[in-house]
Amino acid sequence: MKALYFDGKTLQLLKRPMPVPGEQEALVKVLYSGICNTDLEILKGYMNFQGIIGHEFLGRVEQAPFPEFIGKTVAGEINLACGNCEYCFAGLGRHCPNRTVLGIQGKDGVMAEYVTLPVRYLHVIPPDLDFRKAIFTEPLAAACEIPEQVDILPEYRILLIGDGKLAQLIARVISLRTSRLLVVGVHAGKLSLLQKLGISTILLQDFRDRDHSFQMVIEATGSWDGWKLALRSVRPRGFLVLKSTYAGEHPFNPAALVINEVTVIGSRCGPFKEAIYLLNKGLINPADLITACLPLPEWEKAFTVARKPDSLKVILEH
Amino acid sequence: MKALYFDGKTLQLLKRPMPVPGEQEALVKVLYSGICNTDLEILKGYMNFQGIIGHEFLGRVEQAPFPEFIGKTVAGEINLACGNCEYCFAGLGRHCPNRTVLGIQGKDGVMAEYVTLPVRYLHVIPPDLDFRKAIFTEPLAAACEIPEQVDILPEYRILLIGDGKLAQLIARVISLRTSRLLVVGVHAGKLSLLQKLGISTILLQDFRDRDHSFQMVIEATGSWDGWKLALRSVRPRGFLVLKSTYAGEHPFNPAALVINEVTVIGSRCGPFKEAIYLLNKGLINPADLITACLPLPEWEKAFTVARKPDSLKVILEH
Repeated sequence: MKALYFDGKTLQLLKRPMPVPGEQEALVKVLYSGICNTDLEILKGYMNFQGIIGHEFLGRVEQAPFPEFIGKTVAGEINLACGNCEYCFAGLGRHCPNRTVLGIQGKDGVMAEYVTLPVRYLHVIPPDLDFRKAIFTEPLAAACEIPEQVDILPEYRILLIGDGKLAQLIARVISLRTSRLLVVGVHAGKLSLLQKLGISTILLQDFRDRDHSFQMVIEATGSWDGWKLALRSVRPRGFLVLKSTYAGEHPFNPAALVINEVTVIGSRCGPFKEAIYLLNKGLINPADLITACLPLPEWEKAFTVARKPDSLKVILEH
Repeated sequence: MKALYFDGKTLQLLKRPMPVPGEQEALVKVLYSGICNTDLEILKGYMNFQGIIGHEFLGRVEQAPFPEFIGKTVAGEINLACGNCEYCFAGLGRHCPNRTVLGIQGKDGVMAEYVTLPVRYLHVIPPDLDFRKAIFTEPLAAACEIPEQVDILPEYRILLIGDGKLAQLIARVISLRTSRLLVVGVHAGKLSLLQKLGISTILLQDFRDRDHSFQMVIEATGSWDGWKLALRSVRPRGFLVLKSTYAGEHPFNPAALVINEVTVIGSRCGPFKEAIYLLNKGLINPADLITACLPLPEWEKAFTVARKPDSLKVILEH
């Protein structure tokens, strides 16, 4: 089969062996995949990954140990836990120390004709749900992780720092729960998508209120500058939710967290069922975040578009 | 009156004007004061404080707007809020942006013959409570802040990093709630005080289990090394409670918090009434933490003893 393979230096569309499903695994024909910032970071060396990249996808099940899956359109979780350790027994499979991560760590990803996945990580997509919405299942689940971790109280003023792909989804999720959300970003065009939804936004250059005014701050810029702004904006006794991962270390003194009794909450992958529910009910419609949808053979163009500052989601059609 | 005055460079026992209580303030004759690490940090330049140092004390009320205070032995809170801002109205006076802090910021401290304090910050000490216990009210309150901020579930394995004055009090508070506490420190003598209370301890040099084994880690060393060990010890989805403040910045990447979904909780001052309750009921007896009790004129010796690595609490008798 054809697959986008990263050898640690170069990404190429190569012929790779067809994956063979193990016990309890399905063989899935990939229909669409989404380019995530993590994919772009991997191509810069993040996670030292070598293999087929990609972890956001929709596919059709061709083989499965349970016939009810056959022919269904599915999204799939990316953290593949061992199922047999204390984390897994505690319901923390997404943190299983023995896990592989689809297209990120120890497991070939989805930018290929086929992928195999344990059926317990597949989520059936309702037949009427447009692929332009369903393709966002995985990143929307990551956005949905935030209210799973922190109660969003009605009196909170919430600042979301960032206007990129993940921040856009987070803004939509948070705005289902409160109107007291302000999004600060650097791209007027991206912020305008949020304004159309009635979400308050401000350009960073116009943002003056950095003086600990927000009970909750969500950092989703993928940059150290975002962390610094978050520390200046979060209230004493407030919550700082971190969604960004990036390379490099920066000077830091934890005393600021102690003196202001700030709670910092690291937040990563989230609940797929919640994401599918929100998409299917029309409570969140992220189709406006698609910048381009290109066929897999045009992957080079797709990655070039995905890297542009004004771009949001780029989809590959397989 | 005589007072230990820090001019930004040198600490000296000087003659200073008697403080004059304002409306709603009491005049308190200081009986005992305790030397805290924060005092030692202030003498190194922390907070750029100039004035009379000291914030841990017991005193006798000589003047007060309410007669029921007169003659009573009291401890006093250190964060003196404005009482008139949104933090104060929200019950977050300890984070009032207009606050002064006794002997730390904008307010003369307690290492003097007299101090004035608003009566609402005074807590009457039960008459039978020995000064060797009651003098710990303020730091014990800081230790009691932890269970106010984080639920300590029975299944948690808890690691406390540090064996100093504050760590000793934290260990006593946590061990009231769970037996699954391990204290890692560098001073065998200090750890032996905890062993006598049935608390498990280990020397850092013997501590091998740094591999994310603890659902809750409390960092109370006052050092960056403590933070690094905490990050290595806390479980995915676990809680890292920070009690240390110190100068200087160190290289840090927040991705570790995001990937493991760690919650970091800054924790500072705490509830005085809870501390006095625990001391008065005999549930915590910190008198074994007193390394020396010296008269105020011997303050130089007292500070020399307080700085020794094997010392714990040093008390000044006024």
